Amino acid sequence: MDRIRRNERLAAMTRILVESPNKIFTLGTFCDMFGAAKSTLSEDIDILRGVFAQFHLGQLDTVTGAAGGVRFRPVPSPEEACRAVRELAQMLAAPGRVLPGGFIYMADILAMPDVVEKMGTIIASQFYRAEPDFVLTMETKGIPVAMMTARALGVPMVIVRRDSKVYEGPAVNINYLAGSGGRVETMSLSRRAVKEGQRALIVDDFMRAGGTARGMVDMMREFSVTVVGVCVLIATQEPAKKRLDGVKSLLVIDSTDESTGTAVIRPANWLCAAAEKAAAK
Amino acid sequence: MDRIRRNERLAAMTRILVESPNKIFTLGTFCDMFGAAKSTLSEDIDILRGVFAQFHLGQLDTVTGAAGGVRFRPVPSPEEACRAVRELAQMLAAPGRVLPGGFIYMADILAMPDVVEKMGTIIASQFYRAEPDFVLTMETKGIPVAMMTARALGVPMVIVRRDSKVYEGPAVNINYLAGSGGRVETMSLSRRAVKEGQRALIVDDFMRAGGTARGMVDMMREFSVTVVGVCVLIATQEPAKKRLDGVKSLLVIDSTDESTGTAVIRPANWLCAAAEKAAAK
Repeated sequence: MDRIRRNERLAAMTRILVESPNKIFTLGTFCDMFGAAKSTLSEDIDILRGVFAQFHLGQLDTVTGAAGGVRFRPVPSPEEACRAVRELAQMLAAPGRVLPGGFIYMADILAMPDVVEKMGTIIASQFYRAEPDFVLTMETKGIPVAMMTARALGVPMVIVRRDSKVYEGPAVNINYLAGSGGRVETMSLSRRAVKEGQRALIVDDFMRAGGTARGMVDMMREFSVTVVGVCVLIATQEPAKKRLDGVKSLLVIDSTDESTGTAVIRPANWLCAAAEKAAAK
Repeated sequence: MDRIRRNERLAAMTRILVESPNKIFTLGTFCDMFGAAKSTLSEDIDILRGVFAQFHLGQLDTVTGAAGGVRFRPVPSPEEACRAVRELAQMLAAPGRVLPGGFIYMADILAMPDVVEKMGTIIASQFYRAEPDFVLTMETKGIPVAMMTARALGVPMVIVRRDSKVYEGPAVNINYLAGSGGRVETMSLSRRAVKEGQRALIVDDFMRAGGTARGMVDMMREFSVTVVGVCVLIATQEPAKKRLDGVKSLLVIDSTDESTGTAVIRPANWLCAAAEKAAAK
Protein backbone atom coordinates (compact mmCIF):
# COMPACT_ATOMS: atom_id res chain seq x y z
CA MET A 1 0.00 0.00 0.00
CA ASP A 2 1.24 3.46 -0.85
CA ARG A 3 2.02 5.70 2.07
CA ILE A 4 -1.14 7.60 3.04
CA ARG A 5 -0.75 11.32 3.45
CA ARG A 6 -2.17 13.19 6.41
CA ASN A 7 -4.87 14.94 4.44
CA GLU A 8 -6.06 11.64 3.03
CA ARG A 9 -6.11 10.08 6.50
CA LEU A 10 -8.08 12.97 7.91
CA ALA A 11 -10.73 12.71 5.20
CA ALA A 12 -11.07 8.94 5.59
CA MET A 13 -11.19 9.15 9.40
CA THR A 14 -13.85 11.83 9.21
CA ARG A 15 -16.01 9.67 6.99
CA ILE A 16 -15.61 6.64 9.26
CA LEU A 17 -16.20 8.47 12.54
CA VAL A 18 -19.20 10.40 11.25
CA GLU A 19 -20.86 7.28 9.86
CA SER A 20 -21.05 5.68 13.31
CA PRO A 21 -22.05 8.34 15.82
CA ASN A 22 -21.14 7.74 19.48
CA LYS A 23 -19.12 4.65 18.64
CA ILE A 24 -15.65 4.50 20.19
CA PHE A 25 -12.88 3.69 17.71
CA THR A 26 -9.54 2.70 19.21
CA LEU A 27 -6.46 4.38 17.83
CA GLY A 28 -5.28 0.86 16.98
CA THR A 29 -8.11 0.50 14.44
CA PHE A 30 -6.83 3.51 12.56
CA CYS A 31 -3.17 2.48 12.98
CA ASP A 32 -3.95 -0.79 11.21
CA MET A 33 -6.04 0.89 8.56
CA PHE A 34 -3.46 3.49 7.61
CA GLY A 35 -0.19 1.89 8.67
CA ALA A 36 0.61 4.89 10.86
CA ALA A 37 1.98 5.26 14.39
CA LYS A 38 -0.24 6.06 17.38
CA SER A 39 1.53 9.36 17.94
CA THR A 40 0.77 10.38 14.35
CA LEU A 41 -2.87 9.47 14.77
CA SER A 42 -3.11 11.39 18.04
CA GLU A 43 -1.98 14.47 16.14
CA ASP A 44 -4.55 13.71 13.43
CA ILE A 45 -7.31 13.55 16.04
CA ASP A 46 -6.21 16.88 17.52
CA ILE A 47 -6.44 18.50 14.11
CA LEU A 48 -9.87 16.97 13.45
CA ARG A 49 -11.15 18.12 16.83
CA GLY A 50 -10.13 21.66 15.98
CA VAL A 51 -11.75 21.58 12.53
CA PHE A 52 -14.99 20.15 13.87
CA ALA A 53 -15.15 22.84 16.53
CA GLN A 54 -14.26 25.67 14.16
CA PHE A 55 -16.90 24.79 11.57
CA HIS A 56 -19.56 23.56 14.04
CA LEU A 57 -19.51 20.07 12.59
CA GLY A 58 -20.09 18.22 15.84
CA GLN A 59 -17.96 17.05 18.71
CA LEU A 60 -14.94 14.77 18.68
CA ASP A 61 -14.02 13.31 22.06
CA THR A 62 -11.04 11.32 23.22
CA VAL A 63 -12.19 8.66 25.65
CA THR A 64 -9.54 7.41 28.07
CA GLY A 65 -9.30 4.05 29.81
CA ALA A 66 -9.20 0.42 28.73
CA ALA A 67 -12.09 0.81 26.28
CA GLY A 68 -10.76 4.19 25.22
CA GLY A 69 -10.39 5.76 21.81
CA VAL A 70 -12.05 8.50 19.82
CA ARG A 71 -15.73 9.09 19.24
CA PHE A 72 -17.88 11.46 17.21
CA ARG A 73 -21.13 12.98 18.44
CA PRO A 74 -23.23 15.11 16.08
CA VAL A 75 -23.95 17.75 18.73
CA PRO A 76 -25.22 21.01 17.25
CA SER A 77 -24.32 24.31 18.86
CA PRO A 78 -27.14 25.94 20.88
CA GLU A 79 -27.52 28.60 18.14
CA GLU A 80 -27.79 25.96 15.42
CA ALA A 81 -30.29 23.92 17.41
CA CYS A 82 -32.45 26.96 18.04
CA ARG A 83 -32.29 28.05 14.40
CA ALA A 84 -33.15 24.57 13.07
CA VAL A 85 -36.12 24.25 15.42
CA ARG A 86 -37.28 27.76 14.50
CA GLU A 87 -37.16 26.83 10.81
CA LEU A 88 -39.19 23.70 11.49
CA ALA A 89 -41.74 25.77 13.42
CA GLN A 90 -42.11 28.04 10.39
CA MET A 91 -42.58 25.08 8.05
CA LEU A 92 -45.30 23.62 10.28
CA ALA A 93 -47.05 26.97 10.75
CA ALA A 94 -47.33 27.53 6.98
CA PRO A 95 -50.89 28.39 5.86
CA GLY A 96 -53.14 25.46 4.92
CA ARG A 97 -51.72 22.92 7.34
CA VAL A 98 -54.55 23.19 9.89
CA LEU A 99 -57.05 20.35 9.42
CA PRO A 100 -60.61 19.98 10.73
CA GLY A 101 -60.46 19.44 14.51
CA GLY A 102 -57.45 21.75 14.84
CA PHE A 103 -54.95 19.05 13.88
CA ILE A 104 -51.85 20.11 11.96
CA TYR A 105 -50.74 18.15 8.91
CA MET A 106 -47.13 17.26 9.50
CA ALA A 107 -46.74 13.72 8.16
CA ASP A 108 -44.76 14.99 5.16
CA ILE A 109 -42.26 17.01 7.18
CA LEU A 110 -41.83 14.28 9.81
CA ALA A 111 -40.61 11.93 7.07
CA MET A 112 -38.00 14.23 5.52
CA PRO A 113 -34.64 12.63 6.33
CA ASP A 114 -32.72 15.89 6.67
CA VAL A 115 -35.31 17.44 8.99
CA VAL A 116 -35.70 14.43 11.30
CA GLU A 117 -31.96 13.81 11.31
CA LYS A 118 -31.34 17.35 12.54
CA MET A 119 -34.07 17.00 15.19
CA GLY A 120 -32.71 13.58 16.18
CA THR A 121 -29.27 15.06 16.81
CA ILE A 122 -30.78 17.83 18.93
CA ILE A 123 -32.73 15.33 21.04
CA ALA A 124 -29.74 12.98 21.33
CA SER A 125 -27.48 15.83 22.44
CA GLN A 126 -29.67 16.26 25.52
CA PHE A 127 -29.36 12.62 26.55
CA TYR A 128 -25.78 11.43 25.93
CA ARG A 129 -25.05 11.75 29.64
CA ALA A 130 -28.13 9.69 30.53
CA GLU A 131 -26.63 6.77 28.58
CA PRO A 132 -29.81 5.13 27.28
CA ASP A 133 -29.53 1.57 25.95
CA PHE A 134 -32.31 2.12 23.43
CA VAL A 135 -34.82 4.66 22.13
CA LEU A 136 -38.47 3.69 22.61
CA THR A 137 -41.23 5.08 20.42
CA MET A 138 -44.79 4.22 19.49
CA GLU A 139 -45.82 3.62 15.88
CA THR A 140 -46.12 5.37 13.42
CA LYS A 141 -45.31 9.04 12.83
CA GLY A 142 -42.65 9.25 15.52
CA ILE A 143 -40.54 6.44 14.10
CA PRO A 144 -38.34 8.56 11.79
CA VAL A 145 -37.32 11.05 14.47
CA ALA A 146 -36.87 8.26 17.04
CA MET A 147 -34.74 6.38 14.51
CA MET A 148 -32.50 9.37 13.91
CA THR A 149 -32.20 9.97 17.67
CA ALA A 150 -31.16 6.33 18.09
CA ARG A 151 -28.66 6.70 15.24
CA ALA A 152 -27.06 9.76 16.90
CA LEU A 153 -26.88 7.91 20.22
CA GLY A 154 -25.52 4.75 18.58
CA VAL A 155 -28.24 2.57 20.13
CA PRO A 156 -31.16 0.50 18.74
CA MET A 157 -34.73 1.75 18.48
CA VAL A 158 -37.67 -0.21 19.86
CA ILE A 159 -41.19 0.28 18.50
CA VAL A 160 -44.31 -0.16 20.64
CA ARG A 161 -47.22 -1.45 18.52
CA ARG A 162 -50.92 -0.68 18.66
CA ASP A 163 -51.68 -4.38 18.82
CA SER A 164 -49.71 -7.61 19.06
CA LYS A 165 -48.49 -9.16 15.82
CA VAL A 166 -47.86 -12.80 14.97
CA TYR A 167 -44.31 -11.93 13.90
CA GLU A 168 -43.35 -10.33 17.22
CA GLY A 169 -43.85 -13.39 19.43
CA PRO A 170 -45.16 -13.25 23.02
CA ALA A 171 -45.98 -9.66 23.97
CA VAL A 172 -46.98 -7.53 26.94
CA ASN A 173 -50.16 -5.53 26.34
CA ILE A 174 -51.17 -2.58 28.49
CA ASN A 175 -54.03 -0.11 28.38
CA TYR A 176 -53.53 3.62 28.35
CA LEU A 177 -55.57 6.80 28.07
CA ALA A 178 -55.29 8.18 24.54
CA GLY A 179 -56.15 11.69 23.38
CA SER A 180 -57.46 14.52 25.50
CA GLY A 181 -60.84 12.75 25.72
CA GLY A 182 -59.19 9.84 27.50
CA ARG A 183 -60.28 6.84 25.41
CA VAL A 184 -58.81 3.60 26.69
CA GLU A 185 -56.54 2.06 24.06
CA THR A 186 -54.02 -0.77 24.01
CA MET A 187 -50.31 -0.80 23.29
CA SER A 188 -48.22 -3.90 22.84
CA LEU A 189 -44.51 -4.70 23.11
CA SER A 190 -42.75 -7.96 22.28
CA ARG A 191 -41.36 -9.74 25.36
CA ARG A 192 -38.00 -10.07 23.66
CA ALA A 193 -37.71 -6.45 22.53
CA VAL A 194 -35.99 -5.20 25.71
CA LYS A 195 -34.20 -6.65 28.72
CA GLU A 196 -34.71 -6.09 32.45
CA GLY A 197 -32.37 -3.47 33.85
CA GLN A 198 -31.88 -1.57 30.59
CA ARG A 199 -32.25 2.20 30.26
CA ALA A 200 -34.83 3.67 27.89
CA LEU A 201 -35.11 7.08 26.28
CA ILE A 202 -38.71 7.65 25.14
CA VAL A 203 -39.06 9.73 21.96
CA ASP A 204 -42.28 10.57 20.15
CA ASP A 205 -43.40 13.07 17.56
CA PHE A 206 -46.35 14.68 19.27
CA MET A 207 -47.84 15.12 22.72
CA ARG A 208 -51.11 16.71 23.73
CA ALA A 209 -52.31 15.34 27.09
CA GLY A 210 -49.40 12.94 27.46
CA GLY A 211 -51.40 9.71 27.66
CA THR A 212 -49.30 7.83 25.12
CA ALA A 213 -46.03 8.90 26.72
CA ARG A 214 -47.42 7.90 30.10
CA GLY A 215 -48.41 4.54 28.62
CA MET A 216 -44.86 3.97 27.40
CA VAL A 217 -43.49 4.79 30.87
CA ASP A 218 -45.93 2.27 32.38
CA MET A 219 -44.91 -0.27 29.75
CA MET A 220 -41.25 0.14 30.73
CA ARG A 221 -42.17 -0.51 34.36
CA GLU A 222 -43.64 -3.87 33.26
CA PHE A 223 -40.24 -4.72 31.79
CA SER A 224 -38.26 -3.38 34.81
CA VAL A 225 -36.56 -0.87 32.55
CA THR A 226 -35.45 2.56 33.79
CA VAL A 227 -36.75 5.54 31.83
CA VAL A 228 -33.90 8.06 31.61
CA GLY A 229 -35.89 10.70 29.74
CA VAL A 230 -38.96 11.49 27.69
CA CYS A 231 -38.68 13.87 24.75
CA VAL A 232 -41.23 14.78 22.11
CA LEU A 233 -40.68 16.78 18.97
CA ILE A 234 -43.85 18.84 19.41
CA ALA A 235 -46.08 19.44 22.43
CA THR A 236 -49.24 21.51 22.68
CA GLN A 237 -49.39 24.27 25.29
CA GLU A 238 -52.88 23.06 26.30
CA PRO A 239 -53.72 21.23 28.46
CA ALA A 240 -51.12 22.75 30.77
CA LYS A 241 -51.48 19.78 33.11
CA LYS A 242 -50.16 16.71 31.28
CA ARG A 243 -50.58 13.08 32.31
CA LEU A 244 -46.79 12.86 32.64
CA ASP A 245 -44.35 15.35 34.16
CA GLY A 246 -40.82 16.14 33.06
CA VAL A 247 -41.35 15.71 29.33
CA LYS A 248 -39.01 17.76 27.17
CA SER A 249 -40.24 19.10 23.82
CA LEU A 250 -38.43 20.91 21.02
CA LEU A 251 -41.50 22.75 19.71
CA VAL A 252 -44.63 24.13 21.32
CA ILE A 253 -47.98 24.69 19.60
CA ASP A 254 -49.59 27.64 21.36
CA SER A 255 -52.79 27.63 19.32
CA THR A 256 -54.42 26.53 16.10
CA ASP A 257 -57.21 28.44 14.38
CA GLU A 258 -59.41 26.40 12.06
CA SER A 259 -61.23 29.45 10.67
CA THR A 260 -58.03 31.06 9.35
CA GLY A 261 -56.15 27.77 8.91
CA THR A 262 -53.17 29.05 10.86
CA ALA A 263 -51.22 27.82 13.87
CA VAL A 264 -48.87 29.50 16.32
CA ILE A 265 -45.81 27.26 16.74
CA ARG A 266 -42.51 28.18 18.41
CA PRO A 267 -39.33 26.61 19.76
CA ALA A 268 -39.56 25.53 23.41
CA ASN A 269 -38.20 28.11 25.82
CA TRP A 270 -35.34 25.99 27.19
CA LEU A 271 -33.99 25.52 23.70
CA CYS A 272 -33.65 29.08 22.53
CA ALA A 273 -32.92 30.46 26.00
CA ALA A 274 -29.71 28.39 25.93
CA ALA A 275 -28.89 29.76 22.48
CA GLU A 276 -29.43 33.31 23.60
CA LYS A 277 -27.28 32.76 26.66
CA ALA A 278 -24.50 31.31 24.50
CA ALA A 279 -24.78 34.20 22.04
CA ALA A 280 -24.48 36.71 24.88
CA LYS A 281 -21.17 35.23 26.08
CA MET B 1 -10.55 34.09 9.93
CA ASP B 2 -7.24 32.26 9.94
CA ARG B 3 -6.18 30.72 6.71
CA ILE B 4 -7.56 27.16 6.52
CA ARG B 5 -5.09 24.47 5.61
CA ARG B 6 -5.84 21.81 3.03
CA ASN B 7 -6.11 18.95 5.52
CA GLU B 8 -8.62 20.95 7.58
CA ARG B 9 -10.65 21.76 4.46
CA LEU B 10 -10.71 18.13 3.40
CA ALA B 11 -11.98 16.99 6.79
CA ALA B 12 -14.67 19.66 6.92
CA MET B 13 -15.78 19.02 3.33
CA THR B 14 -15.99 15.30 4.02
CA ARG B 15 -18.24 15.89 7.01
CA ILE B 16 -20.50 18.24 5.05
CA LEU B 17 -20.77 16.09 1.91
CA VAL B 18 -21.35 12.87 3.84
CA GLU B 19 -24.09 14.42 5.99
CA SER B 20 -26.26 15.17 2.95
CA PRO B 21 -26.08 12.21 0.58
CA ASN B 22 -26.90 12.83 -3.10
CA LYS B 23 -27.08 16.60 -2.57
CA ILE B 24 -25.13 18.69 -5.06
CA PHE B 25 -22.89 21.32 -3.46
CA THR B 26 -21.52 23.98 -5.77
CA LEU B 27 -17.83 24.75 -5.57
CA GLY B 28 -18.91 28.29 -4.73
CA THR B 29 -20.42 27.10 -1.44
CA PHE B 30 -17.06 25.76 -0.36
CA CYS B 31 -15.17 28.77 -1.75
CA ASP B 32 -17.23 31.04 0.50
CA MET B 33 -16.91 28.73 3.48
CA PHE B 34 -13.12 28.41 3.33
CA GLY B 35 -12.05 31.57 1.51
CA ALA B 36 -10.28 29.49 -1.13
CA ALA B 37 -10.14 29.67 -4.94
CA LYS B 38 -12.14 27.36 -7.18
CA SER B 39 -8.99 25.82 -8.61
CA THR B 40 -7.82 24.93 -5.10
CA LEU B 41 -11.15 23.34 -4.29
CA SER B 42 -11.10 21.35 -7.54
CA GLU B 43 -7.82 19.87 -6.40
CA ASP B 44 -9.35 19.14 -2.98
CA ILE B 45 -12.22 17.28 -4.61
CA ASP B 46 -9.81 15.22 -6.69
CA ILE B 47 -7.95 14.19 -3.56
CA LEU B 48 -11.19 13.33 -1.76
CA ARG B 49 -12.42 11.27 -4.69
CA GLY B 50 -9.23 9.24 -4.57
CA VAL B 51 -9.42 8.68 -0.80
CA PHE B 52 -13.06 7.62 -0.95
CA ALA B 53 -12.31 5.15 -3.72
CA GLN B 54 -9.19 3.76 -2.04
CA PHE B 55 -10.89 3.08 1.32
CA HIS B 56 -14.31 2.13 -0.12
CA LEU B 57 -16.00 5.02 1.62
CA GLY B 58 -18.56 5.76 -1.08
CA GLN B 59 -18.59 7.66 -4.31
CA LEU B 60 -17.80 11.31 -4.95
CA ASP B 61 -19.04 12.66 -8.28
CA THR B 62 -18.47 15.92 -10.04
CA VAL B 63 -21.67 17.03 -11.72
CA THR B 64 -21.25 19.38 -14.67
CA GLY B 65 -23.68 21.96 -16.04
CA ALA B 66 -25.54 24.95 -14.66
CA ALA B 67 -26.66 23.10 -11.50
CA GLY B 68 -23.27 21.43 -11.25
CA GLY B 69 -21.01 20.81 -8.32
CA VAL B 70 -19.94 17.87 -6.21
CA ARG B 71 -22.07 15.19 -4.63
CA PHE B 72 -21.54 12.23 -2.32
CA ARG B 73 -23.32 8.90 -2.68
CA PRO B 74 -22.82 6.19 -0.04
CA VAL B 75 -22.49 3.41 -2.62
CA PRO B 76 -20.96 0.24 -1.18
CA SER B 77 -18.74 -1.95 -3.34
CA PRO B 78 -20.39 -5.19 -4.59
CA GLU B 79 -18.21 -7.18 -2.16
CA GLU B 80 -19.19 -5.01 0.79
CA ALA B 81 -22.89 -5.18 -0.14
CA CYS B 82 -22.74 -8.96 -0.42
CA ARG B 83 -20.86 -9.29 2.86
CA ALA B 84 -23.25 -6.98 4.76
CA VAL B 85 -26.31 -8.84 3.47
CA ARG B 86 -24.70 -12.19 4.31
CA GLU B 87 -24.07 -10.98 7.87
CA LEU B 88 -27.69 -9.90 8.17
CA ALA B 89 -28.84 -13.31 6.88
CA GLN B 90 -26.78 -14.96 9.62
CA MET B 91 -28.26 -12.70 12.30
CA LEU B 92 -31.81 -13.50 11.16
CA ALA B 93 -31.12 -17.24 10.88
CA ALA B 94 -29.86 -17.44 14.48
CA PRO B 95 -31.58 -20.19 16.50
CA GLY B 96 -34.73 -19.22 18.38
CA ARG B 97 -36.02 -16.62 15.93
CA VAL B 98 -38.66 -18.84 14.34
CA LEU B 99 -42.09 -18.17 15.85
CA PRO B 100 -45.31 -20.21 15.72
CA GLY B 101 -46.65 -20.14 12.16
CA GLY B 102 -43.14 -20.07 10.70
CA PHE B 103 -42.72 -16.32 11.14
CA ILE B 104 -39.24 -14.99 11.90
CA TYR B 105 -38.73 -12.47 14.68
CA MET B 106 -36.84 -9.60 13.13
CA ALA B 107 -38.34 -6.46 14.67
CA ASP B 108 -35.22 -5.89 16.78
CA ILE B 109 -32.77 -6.13 13.89
CA LEU B 110 -34.95 -4.02 11.57
CA ALA B 111 -34.69 -1.15 14.07
CA MET B 112 -30.91 -1.13 14.49
CA PRO B 113 -29.71 2.10 12.89
CA ASP B 114 -26.39 0.71 11.64
CA VAL B 115 -28.02 -2.35 10.05
CA VAL B 116 -30.84 -0.50 8.30
CA GLU B 117 -28.52 2.31 7.24
CA LYS B 118 -26.25 -0.19 5.51
CA MET B 119 -29.24 -1.89 3.85
CA GLY B 120 -30.67 1.49 2.87
CA THR B 121 -27.44 2.42 1.10
CA ILE B 122 -27.45 -0.90 -0.77
CA ILE B 123 -31.05 -0.40 -1.92
CA ALA B 124 -30.43 3.24 -2.83
CA SER B 125 -27.36 2.31 -4.86
CA GLN B 126 -29.60 0.28 -7.18
CA PHE B 127 -31.95 3.20 -7.86
CA TYR B 128 -29.91 6.41 -8.21
CA ARG B 129 -30.28 6.21 -11.98
CA ALA B 130 -34.06 5.79 -11.69
CA GLU B 131 -34.21 9.22 -9.97
CA PRO B 132 -37.14 8.66 -7.60
CA ASP B 133 -38.75 11.74 -6.05
CA PHE B 134 -39.67 9.87 -2.89
CA VAL B 135 -39.53 6.47 -1.17
CA LEU B 136 -42.92 4.91 -0.43
CA THR B 137 -43.41 2.35 2.34
CA MET B 138 -46.24 0.92 4.39
CA GLU B 139 -46.28 1.13 8.16
CA THR B 140 -44.65 -0.17 10.39
CA LYS B 141 -41.61 -2.45 10.32
CA GLY B 142 -40.37 -1.25 6.93
CA ILE B 143 -40.14 2.40 7.97
CA PRO B 144 -36.55 2.36 9.27
CA VAL B 145 -35.05 0.79 6.14
CA ALA B 146 -37.24 2.95 3.88
CA MET B 147 -36.09 6.01 5.85
CA MET B 148 -32.44 5.14 5.41
CA THR B 149 -32.98 4.46 1.70
CA ALA B 150 -34.62 7.88 1.38
CA ARG B 151 -31.71 9.45 3.29
CA ALA B 152 -29.17 7.89 0.92
CA LEU B 153 -31.18 9.08 -2.09
CA GLY B 154 -31.66 12.55 -0.61
CA VAL B 155 -35.45 12.40 -1.03
CA PRO B 156 -38.44 12.34 1.38
CA MET B 157 -40.16 9.18 2.57
CA VAL B 158 -43.94 8.73 2.35
CA ILE B 159 -45.78 6.31 4.66
CA VAL B 160 -48.94 4.49 3.61
CA ARG B 161 -51.21 3.90 6.62
CA ARG B 162 -53.46 0.99 7.51
CA ASP B 163 -56.36 3.39 8.00
CA SER B 164 -56.99 7.09 7.52
CA LYS B 165 -56.10 9.40 10.38
CA VAL B 166 -57.66 12.71 11.38
CA TYR B 167 -54.22 14.35 11.26
CA GLU B 168 -53.51 13.35 7.66
CA GLY B 169 -56.44 15.17 6.02
CA PRO B 170 -58.39 13.86 3.02
CA ALA B 171 -57.06 10.45 1.98
CA VAL B 172 -57.34 7.86 -0.77
CA ASN B 173 -58.23 4.40 0.53
CA ILE B 174 -57.79 1.24 -1.52
CA ASN B 175 -58.29 -2.45 -0.83
CA TYR B 176 -55.58 -5.03 -1.34
CA LEU B 177 -55.01 -8.74 -0.83
CA ALA B 178 -52.90 -9.25 2.30
CA GLY B 179 -51.00 -12.39 3.24
CA SER B 180 -50.82 -15.62 1.32
CA GLY B 181 -54.43 -16.38 2.33
CA GLY B 182 -55.58 -13.28 0.47
CA ARG B 183 -57.59 -11.39 3.11
CA VAL B 184 -58.94 -8.09 1.80
CA GLU B 185 -57.46 -5.21 3.78
CA THR B 186 -57.38 -1.46 3.37
CA MET B 187 -54.49 0.96 2.95
CA SER B 188 -54.76 4.73 3.09
CA LEU B 189 -52.63 7.60 1.82
CA SER B 190 -53.14 11.30 2.43
CA ARG B 191 -54.16 13.25 -0.70
CA ARG B 192 -51.42 15.77 -0.05
CA ALA B 193 -48.63 13.25 0.52
CA VAL B 194 -47.57 13.01 -3.14
CA LYS B 195 -48.06 14.94 -6.38
CA GLU B 196 -49.21 13.78 -9.81
CA GLY B 197 -46.31 13.04 -12.14
CA GLN B 198 -43.80 12.22 -9.40
CA ARG B 199 -41.64 9.11 -9.40
CA ALA B 200 -41.87 6.60 -6.53
CA LEU B 201 -39.47 3.96 -5.28
CA ILE B 202 -41.39 1.41 -3.19
CA VAL B 203 -39.41 -0.08 -0.29
CA ASP B 204 -40.67 -2.55 2.30
CA ASP B 205 -39.14 -4.91 4.82
CA PHE B 206 -40.81 -8.17 3.91
CA MET B 207 -42.67 -9.81 1.04
CA ARG B 208 -44.34 -13.19 0.89
CA ALA B 209 -47.06 -13.21 -1.80
CA GLY B 210 -46.55 -9.58 -2.77
CA GLY B 211 -50.06 -8.34 -2.00
CA THR B 212 -48.94 -5.30 0.00
CA ALA B 213 -46.39 -4.28 -2.63
CA ARG B 214 -49.04 -4.73 -5.31
CA GLY B 215 -51.40 -2.58 -3.25
CA MET B 216 -48.80 0.20 -3.09
CA VAL B 217 -48.35 0.05 -6.87
CA ASP B 218 -52.13 0.32 -7.29
CA MET B 219 -52.17 3.21 -4.85
CA MET B 220 -49.56 5.07 -6.91
CA ARG B 221 -51.73 4.61 -10.00
CA GLU B 222 -54.55 6.42 -8.15
CA PHE B 223 -52.16 9.34 -7.68
CA SER B 224 -50.82 9.22 -11.29
CA VAL B 225 -47.35 8.56 -9.92
CA THR B 226 -44.78 6.45 -11.82
CA VAL B 227 -43.29 3.55 -9.88
CA VAL B 228 -39.59 3.38 -10.81
CA GLY B 229 -38.83 0.30 -8.72
CA VAL B 230 -39.95 -2.00 -5.94
CA CYS B 231 -37.39 -3.36 -3.49
CA VAL B 232 -37.89 -5.36 -0.32
CA LEU B 233 -35.31 -6.24 2.27
CA ILE B 234 -36.46 -9.86 2.58
CA ALA B 235 -38.61 -12.04 0.33
CA THR B 236 -39.68 -15.64 0.79
CA GLN B 237 -38.86 -18.15 -1.93
CA GLU B 238 -42.44 -19.50 -1.71
CA PRO B 239 -44.84 -18.83 -3.32
CA ALA B 240 -42.70 -18.63 -6.45
CA LYS B 241 -45.51 -16.79 -8.25
CA LYS B 242 -45.91 -13.40 -6.58
CA ARG B 243 -48.76 -10.95 -7.01
CA LEU B 244 -46.27 -8.46 -8.45
CA ASP B 245 -43.41 -9.04 -10.88
CA GLY B 246 -40.03 -7.35 -10.98
CA VAL B 247 -39.56 -6.93 -7.24
CA LYS B 248 -35.94 -6.84 -6.11
CA SER B 249 -35.01 -8.29 -2.70
CA LEU B 250 -31.74 -8.28 -0.78
CA LEU B 251 -32.41 -11.47 1.17
CA VAL B 252 -34.32 -14.66 0.43
CA ILE B 253 -35.89 -17.00 2.99
CA ASP B 254 -35.74 -20.47 1.49
CA SER B 255 -37.45 -22.24 4.38
CA THR B 256 -38.34 -22.05 8.05
CA ASP B 257 -38.67 -25.07 10.31
CA GLU B 258 -40.83 -24.61 13.39
CA SER B 259 -39.84 -27.93 14.94
CA THR B 260 -36.12 -27.06 15.04
CA GLY B 261 -36.67 -23.30 15.26
CA THR B 262 -34.30 -22.66 12.37
CA ALA B 263 -34.56 -20.83 9.07
CA VAL B 264 -32.55 -20.92 5.86
CA ILE B 265 -31.86 -17.34 4.79
CA ARG B 266 -29.39 -16.18 2.13
CA PRO B 267 -28.46 -13.13 0.06
CA ALA B 268 -30.41 -12.83 -3.21
CA ASN B 269 -28.53 -14.25 -6.20
CA TRP B 270 -28.23 -10.98 -8.11
CA LEU B 271 -26.48 -9.38 -5.15
CA CYS B 272 -23.66 -11.82 -4.53
CA ALA B 273 -23.32 -12.81 -8.19
CA ALA B 274 -22.27 -9.22 -8.87
CA ALA B 275 -19.78 -9.40 -6.00
CA GLU B 276 -18.28 -12.62 -7.28
CA LYS B 277 -18.00 -11.19 -10.77
CA ALA B 278 -16.21 -8.12 -9.41
CA ALA B 279 -13.90 -10.27 -7.28
CA ALA B 280 -12.98 -12.37 -10.34
CA LYS B 281 -11.87 -9.30 -12.32
